[in-house]
Formats: sequence, C-alpha cells, structure tokens
Amino acid sequence: MLHAEVKSETLKKLVDIVGTIVDEVKLNIGSDGINLKAVDPAHVAMVHLELTKNAFDSYEAQETELGLNLSKLEQFLKLSSSDEMVKIDHIEDENRLVLEVDKITQKMPLLDTAGMTDPNVPQLDLPIHLVIEGKHLLKGVKASQNISDHIALTAGPDGFDMFSEEDEDLVRLSLSKDDIKELDAPEEVRSLFALDYFSSMIKSVSGDTLIQLELGRDYPVKLEFDFAEGNGHVRFLLAPRIETS
Amino acid sequence: MLHAEVKSETLKKLVDIVGTIVDEVKLNIGSDGINLKAVDPAHVAMVHLELTKNAFDSYEAQETELGLNLSKLEQFLKLSSSDEMVKIDHIEDENRLVLEVDKITQKMPLLDTAGMTDPNVPQLDLPIHLVIEGKHLLKGVKASQNISDHIALTAGPDGFDMFSEEDEDLVRLSLSKDDIKELDAPEEVRSLFALDYFSSMIKSVSGDTLIQLELGRDYPVKLEFDFAEGNGHVRFLLAPRIETS
Amino acid sequence: MLHAEVKSETLKKLVDIVGTIVDEVKLNIGSDGINLKAVDPAHVAMVHLELTKNAFDSYEAQETELGLNLSKLEQFLKLSSSDEMVKIDHIEDENRLVLEVDKITQKMPLLDTAGMTDPNVPQLDLPIHLVIEGKHLLKGVKASQNISDHIALTAGPDGFDMFSEEDEDLVRLSLSKDDIKELDAPEEVRSLFALDYFSSMIKSVSGDTLIQLELGRDYPVKLEFDFAEGNGHVRFLLAPRIETS
Repeated sequence: MLHAEVKSETLKKLVDIVGTIVDEVKLNIGSDGINLKAVDPAHVAMVHLELTKNAFDSYEAQETELGLNLSKLEQFLKLSSSDEMVKIDHIEDENRLVLEVDKITQKMPLLDTAGMTDPNVPQLDLPIHLVIEGKHLLKGVKASQNISDHIALTAGPDGFDMFSEEDEDLVRLSLSKDDIKELDAPEEVRSLFALDYFSSMIKSVSGDTLIQLELGRDYPVKLEFDFAEGNGHVRFLLAPRIETS
Repeated sequence: MLHAEVKSETLKKLVDIVGTIVDEVKLNIGSDGINLKAVDPAHVAMVHLELTKNAFDSYEAQETELGLNLSKLEQFLKLSSSDEMVKIDHIEDENRLVLEVDKITQKMPLLDTAGMTDPNVPQLDLPIHLVIEGKHLLKGVKASQNISDHIALTAGPDGFDMFSEEDEDLVRLSLSKDDIKELDAPEEVRSLFALDYFSSMIKSVSGDTLIQLELGRDYPVKLEFDFAEGNGHVRFLLAPRIETS
Repeated sequence: MLHAEVKSETLKKLVDIVGTIVDEVKLNIGSDGINLKAVDPAHVAMVHLELTKNAFDSYEAQETELGLNLSKLEQFLKLSSSDEMVKIDHIEDENRLVLEVDKITQKMPLLDTAGMTDPNVPQLDLPIHLVIEGKHLLKGVKASQNISDHIALTAGPDGFDMFSEEDEDLVRLSLSKDDIKELDAPEEVRSLFALDYFSSMIKSVSGDTLIQLELGRDYPVKLEFDFAEGNGHVRFLLAPRIETS
C-alpha cells in the first residue's frame, strides 16, 4: 500500500539519478520511506537511493515492492512544474500506479518485480575520503570528454586530480587542498574509470552540491550526495578500468 | 488588386494556423478583408479563416484570388520581428506578390488557383457548446501524447474530459464546471479523434486564448478562436475516428 | 617561444573567424603579436588575421610557427567563460602547446608546419569602397538563403544592394546612401558570390561591427573588420562566381 504526496521536483530528481543507470527499477516501499538498489546491464555501476518519508508532504505506506518504468514516469512529470504536488496511489489489485497532478490523472501499469532482485552492495573499505563541490567534478569531466573515453582520479595529501590522455593530448583538473571541503588522504592513490559511466553518475548534481568521494588504488570509486533537502541520499559505486599503459 | 500593410505577427499567426492543415492555400481577397477555406490532403480536418480589413494598417483591394505557398511566406516573415510592418502588393500581370519589410523586398510567384476550389464547409448542428482556455487543451494534448495516438473528448453537465488509453496505460485531464468559462451541455457526449490532427489544430493558440468547442456523440468537433486582436477568426472542423474497442 | 595570457573571448573570436575557412592553421608568432594567412581547400576564400600583443594581458615571444588544430582549441575554450584568462605556453622540445584556465591544464600536440605555407594574398585594386554595419550584411544573407545558393553584391553612387534570384523568386536588401557609414563608389559595379562562403565570412560579426567592403565588376570582394577591441584585424577575400544568365 502506498498513498503519498510529493513535490514534482523530488520525483524528477529521483528519475534523473536512477535513469542514468537503469530504465526499469524496483522500488522498495516501507513505512519510513522508499529505497532502491540497481545495477546497470553491464554490471559496472551501481546505485543505492534512499528517500525518507520526510521528503513527502504526506506519506502512508505498508511494505511492498513497485516495478517502475522510469521513462513513463519522466514523461508524466514533464506535465508538471517543479513545485507542483504529485499524488501517488498504488492500486494493488490492478498492480497499477495512479499519479495525479493538477487536473491530470494517469494510470500506469507496474512491472512484475518477480525477477527484479536487489543487487548486493559490496562492503568496501576505501582508504581515501574527500568532499568536493559538484562544479569541480562537472568541469573535470567536461574537459576529459574533449580528448578521451577514460578518466583517472588521483588523490593524495596534496589534493585531488582528474586526468585524461589520448595519444599526445592530455588534460588535467587539479584541486589543491584549499579547493577541497574535506580531505582525508594519508597516501596517494589512483584509479581509472570509463568516462561515460562517471559522467552519467554526476550529471544530475548541481554546481554547489557537496559530493563525498571514496577512493582506493585501482579500486572502485564511491560517490555519495544528498538531495530533496537532505531527505534523500544516493550512493553510486563504479568499478575501475584496468590501466593498460 | 491588393495593396496593404499589416504587422508581421498577424501574418505569422495566419501561417501558423493554416500551415498545420495545408502547405498551399488559395486566399480569397475582398474589399472588406481576406478569407480562406482549406481541407487537409486526407480530408480529415478543415480550416476556415477570416481576417477583416481592420486587422491591417492600410488595406486596398478588389476581389481576387491569390495562390500562396505558406512555407515561402513563413521564411520571409522570419526576416522581421513581430511588430514590424509588412507591405504587400499584388503585381497582377506577373502574378507575383511583392513583400517588403524594413530594407528587404521579396518577389514571390503565386500559384495557379485554377484547380484550388473552396471546400464546402458542412453545416453541423452540434448539441454541446463550451468555452475553455487554451492552456487546458494544450496540457491535455501533451498528456495524451505520452501514451497514445488518439484522444477522446467527453462533455456533459458536470464538465469536460480529455482521455486517452493504450494497453493498460490511461491518462485523463478533467475540467469541472468551475474550470470552464461557458458550458452548455444538456447531455453527455463522447467522440474520438486522431491526436496528431487535434494537436495541430491547437498548437498555434496561447494559454489564455478562449476556445469555443462544439461537440456531439461520435461526431466532428468544431473548434473556433479569435486572433489579431479580434479582427481574425478561425474555425477548425475535425472528423471523428470510429471507436474500435 | 611563446608565453602569453589572453582573455578566452579573444581566442574564441579567432577560432570563430578562421574556423569558417580551415580546420588547421599555421600561426606566425612574432615579438609584436601573431598573424595567420589561410585559404580554404577549394581556394575560393582567403583569410588574413592579425592580433597585436596589445590584445594580450601579457605577451612574450620569439619568432616561431605553431601548427594549430582549431577544433581542439575550440573544445578547450568551451571550458571557460568569455572573460576568464587563458595562459598559453609553447613547449618547444615536445612541440606541444600548454593551455591553462582556472584549475584546468591541457597539453595539445602541435601540427607539423613543414607543408603549411602562407598563401600569397593577391594585391587587388578594387574601385569601390564602403563601410556598413554587420546587421545589414547578416540580414541580407539570411534573406538570400531563403531562395538561392548565390548572392550578388551591387554598389554604386546611390547605395548598396544584396540580391538573389532563383526561378521566379527574387529577394533584395537595399541600403540607400543614408544607411551606409561610408560610400566611395564612383561607378556601379556588381559581382556574384557563393552564398555559403559569403555567409561563413560574416557569421562571426555582431550587428554593430563596422565592416569595410571593397568591390569591383565581376571581381573578388574584400571584407575587413576589427575585433579584440581594435587590437585584432581580419581581411577576407572571396572569389566571384561567373554569372551564367
């Protein structure tokens, strides 16, 4: 059972974040809020998103699972402005979601969740931890996209670097300790990532979003940030590429 | 003979409205203004447009017919801003139109109107009459486009509905009596229409344009509105689709 | 040797101007500034651009040549806003350019300039000279693009015309003496040009840029304007088409 009201922009953000990884997702509905875990078809990136009931204007729910087509939800949300209120109702016997905004009502069939299991999120003990503003990640990715399909992330006691090279072209965004909000990097580490995945993961963040990064040596990167005024939280995990040069 | 001056935006609106139905059109020029009647190639939609001489800054004309290519006129109008004045002259012996705006003069050959007869506009006695703001129609159409190629219009004593369904998806925009400017609907009627045609007919209206709708049971819809500060008037007629389910 | 700092917008303008003619160009670096000469692959249009050291915030250079890929430079410049400062360094032993803006550093291999000779700019004694604002050229080109692939430029004691025709369509932008900043046209001349080339040459100018035109009878057109607050100057030369009608 789910009966809730939430600002359109909160759902838009959820779709933006999760839609970079998968098209269809299973939402786990609980009495305190919703969460989801999804892995992309190539098993390279994983997302874990939580949205507490405080993100909603009203929220009544019993534990259940909803199989959601994110494109359909995105299309529906385009009918509303960011601060309009969306009403959500789950009609259990029809397995359909009823969405209402302003004068519009849409009934949407839900997907069968039988084959949609939550992926296991691996427990990683990553030695490097830092917090930086979204604008730096966005700019570093844009610079790397000009020349390469890969991006290397490097962190150490002196700062954080995003680096790409291809033939004789190379580009680097360098953040010194002063450009970084928090830096806990006792040793120097570096890992290489597929640029399209990494750029997808950050494309929903705004310039002033604070992003937590956890890194190791040739290890996955963990990237976390809040949304929905702190009532939503998202964790991305991205597997590294093997350095061939 | 035609010798006239008119604001660019008035001609742009005419092209917007008629261009959704046909690419080439015969303008009937009279001493009191111009009018045109056109039907789309599939004979599903019809437009009847009138523009009185008051819509023009200056207007001198004798009865004649002009065969117009709307795309060429649209391209010319893009050279001007909305409130610039366009001079129109018909050079009869060349059968060309001379258009002038600012420092630009364009001579445009006219089409042979011999084979372009005015379609007969059927006289329909439609039982339901209502007036609503353009914004509702625009939103209802946008919602329907997310899921279907068809749209059902329903009106009755309680209000007006735009409804589409496809497989298990369905979407509805519901206007209660209070959302409707005028409602004269003694009985409940419903007709189904091709969504691409219906959306074309309304795509030139702005959110606050008042639109007159006339409806029957499985009957054509008539849609009328003013433009050019009330000096222009347009009537669309759209044939219904047969409900197959 | 080159070691300089310059506003991003100055480099963006240089790329805009030269990129309409060639993708790769040889920059001649001197102690007083840089210059380049380039001809398009079909040898129809030629550009000669000069940028004095005053256009730079700091400038130290010894005579050298740099082979530049303009698309790569354009991509790099998109990482910066117009008034951000770009640092340029030539690493001679690597034959690479190092570009820095904000926190980003890019190293770009330079092209081998061995086969890139400066084209000879022909000395033309063109009888007609005029100065007009960019907005007129932009509008005349836009009007001509609606109907033709060619544009005729005509100048004489009474003014300046841009004219195109195709079948029975024709369009003309006419500037009288009063619309023209300077007019030195003792005789009436006319030359025909390929519209795509002519539009490329002016597409980087703004509406209020003053443009010098020099014309003859069935002769090339010379088009000159300043940029970078007068510290940059560009000359275009475009060969005429033969009138076939």
